[in-house]
Amino acid sequence: MLARREDLEALDRSDELRDFRARFDLPPDLVYLDGNSLGPPSRATRERIARAVEDEWGRGLIRSWESAGWISLPQRTGDKIARLIGAGPGEVIAADSTSVNLFKALSIALQANRGRRIVLSERGNFPTDLYIAQGLIAHLGAGHELVLVEGGGLERALQDRGHEVAAAFLTHIDYVSGQVHDMARITAAARAAGATMIWDLAHSAGAVPLTLNACGVDLAVGCGYKYLNGGPGAPAFLYVARELQRGAQPLSGWMGHADPFAFAERYEPAPGIARFLCGTPSVIAMSALDAALDLLLEASMEAIRGKSVALGNAFIELVDRHCAGSGLRLVSPRDGSLRGSQVSYSHPESRAVMGKLIDHGVIGDVRAPDILRFGFAPLYTRYVDVWDAVVRLRDATSRPT
Amino acid sequence: MLARREDLEALDRSDELRDFRARFDLPPDLVYLDGNSLGPPSRATRERIARAVEDEWGRGLIRSWESAGWISLPQRTGDKIARLIGAGPGEVIAADSTSVNLFKALSIALQANRGRRIVLSERGNFPTDLYIAQGLIAHLGAGHELVLVEGGGLERALQDRGHEVAAAFLTHIDYVSGQVHDMARITAAARAAGATMIWDLAHSAGAVPLTLNACGVDLAVGCGYKYLNGGPGAPAFLYVARELQRGAQPLSGWMGHADPFAFAERYEPAPGIARFLCGTPSVIAMSALDAALDLLLEASMEAIRGKSVALGNAFIELVDRHCAGSGLRLVSPRDGSLRGSQVSYSHPESRAVMGKLIDHGVIGDVRAPDILRFGFAPLYTRYVDVWDAVVRLRDATSRPT
Repeated sequence: MLARREDLEALDRSDELRDFRARFDLPPDLVYLDGNSLGPPSRATRERIARAVEDEWGRGLIRSWESAGWISLPQRTGDKIARLIGAGPGEVIAADSTSVNLFKALSIALQANRGRRIVLSERGNFPTDLYIAQGLIAHLGAGHELVLVEGGGLERALQDRGHEVAAAFLTHIDYVSGQVHDMARITAAARAAGATMIWDLAHSAGAVPLTLNACGVDLAVGCGYKYLNGGPGAPAFLYVARELQRGAQPLSGWMGHADPFAFAERYEPAPGIARFLCGTPSVIAMSALDAALDLLLEASMEAIRGKSVALGNAFIELVDRHCAGSGLRLVSPRDGSLRGSQVSYSHPESRAVMGKLIDHGVIGDVRAPDILRFGFAPLYTRYVDVWDAVVRLRDATSRPT
Repeated sequence: MLARREDLEALDRSDELRDFRARFDLPPDLVYLDGNSLGPPSRATRERIARAVEDEWGRGLIRSWESAGWISLPQRTGDKIARLIGAGPGEVIAADSTSVNLFKALSIALQANRGRRIVLSERGNFPTDLYIAQGLIAHLGAGHELVLVEGGGLERALQDRGHEVAAAFLTHIDYVSGQVHDMARITAAARAAGATMIWDLAHSAGAVPLTLNACGVDLAVGCGYKYLNGGPGAPAFLYVARELQRGAQPLSGWMGHADPFAFAERYEPAPGIARFLCGTPSVIAMSALDAALDLLLEASMEAIRGKSVALGNAFIELVDRHCAGSGLRLVSPRDGSLRGSQVSYSHPESRAVMGKLIDHGVIGDVRAPDILRFGFAPLYTRYVDVWDAVVRLRDATSRPT
């Protein structure tokens, strides 16, 4: 039982990840529980950006495309992400934004399944994913239809009408509730129906162990600026299983050409994952992401997951105890194995409550209509942060007496 | 006549832009004539990146989307670019890569001209532009055809068969020869034919004065990392004339939504230029570009153009005099008014010659098959740089005696 702050201090002392926090230089006196929206910079990331700017750009100038290895950075960064998500080398590329990468992935899937007209997802999937599907379908004008089933209904819909589905897509961990979808089962249901399944790993990569290859996943996209700590608007990533890498993608820019510097007239896609690049990537932004990944790779995803579940469980236990009658209602799964690295509550005055928390140095965020989200990033979130956050949450939700 | 190095030193002394160079901290003893491929960082740009990383990301964290104005940065940066290219506020957005933005622009143009099947450009247009058109046409599968006419033939083709043309696109300043195309005339020819003209300003923005509105240009894209000095892989830009801003674009990501943080299920495009955003842009990369633009806007494009032509003329004059019989053949227009901010020569051993130049501290670049390019960026290129480059070019091309 976590009765006193000292109990959480004890957990911090025995935490195998405890030494990572000092490498982030977080603002003192701030409890930052919003790494699920924007991870912070580590000291190494800041140093890497400075080096990319001063040495590589400032002194190396154009030569750095070769001498500093800029040209292969999207592949090298992608290979680091691959290690975090259970993919092989050459199956992940860091590039563009999650939205642009989903556009590529959906295009590949629709091309692979001509004759099927349904694009399937769930209501409540992250909005930009739905918007991209809507834009792509309108653009193609080929009679595809976006079908949205209720939350949790994707597997059933694949069983019922999967033979009509060209592509199904879903965010692996729900951005509102933090619920984890069963990647293996849903992917298998899509495969059984002959549909292509695309996973959005925005809230998963760097937060939970993933096994894309083992689950037989064809396509996935993900975000660089949440648990990967790559910086605001960091390059995103695209995973394409080796068997699908022969597919064409419509955003056929020169960086995906087999020989960009031949300046040939005809597009000839690069043989491997590089064909899913489009234009010239931001080297500075990519360098930040690359350095952030090194830090994550020093820890094991198992250790990260273990502490993440423990932090979430502690948060829920303390809210249960200290915030009874406060109007907070848990919307995340209570079972840690079904929950990503966040805990969400609804509250009728969610915005006002979060405003008070932020005023008192606890940063989480809100989502429509009435959701408070608290994210846990085991490399820098301490157990005492959970205690301090709940104490202030109690104060922020207690009614005046 | 430029007979001695002292003559060029005198030109530097009377140059109204002379004080800008010190604000770049270029490596000493380096003659950098490749700003047409990658502009260098100014001191202010480096400071801005450091601030974006340390203060905004590191201390402000998620709050900086509002407190540091991250959310409106693409529009504010776009408005600065608008001032450089003769566009109005709210007509330019900084976003994605040039390739991705061209995909958007071509999509808008094809949608505006349904029933026309030709997409027109010139052989020798910058390859990624051709590749994007090829990818888009294959993706749509609607029977469009990419027709490439010989270099310089676009206006004539628009006159001859413009009624079949949905979209025509061309790089305003040729990346090989530096030749400037007549934006007003070619745009008028497209308009007369009812076709939509799209300009790629990669080698123009920040190099020559542009008057997009006055030329009646509908759509344009451009690059942030050449003459705009925004950093390797900097965000690119998209110009959409006000009248066309009602068009939809297929890359309908959440940052282009009328209210991204309403998390609505249906995509509803933002009313103005913001609808042409897609995913979350890299804030650090965008901050670098934004700061670089401030420096450019301190100078006048007329002063920049005047010096640019003078630098190019001086280079040609000195090569004429010192490199006779060297095998160098001018491929850029001799008339400065027809030439962008670069001078190109062919040479049978172009790669070996550039290798020697780089070894001796003069950086230009090569393009297939046998082209040497030398770019002039008046904010930091000095007249003596031209002298020093030509002296070493003479040495690098002189035959052993």
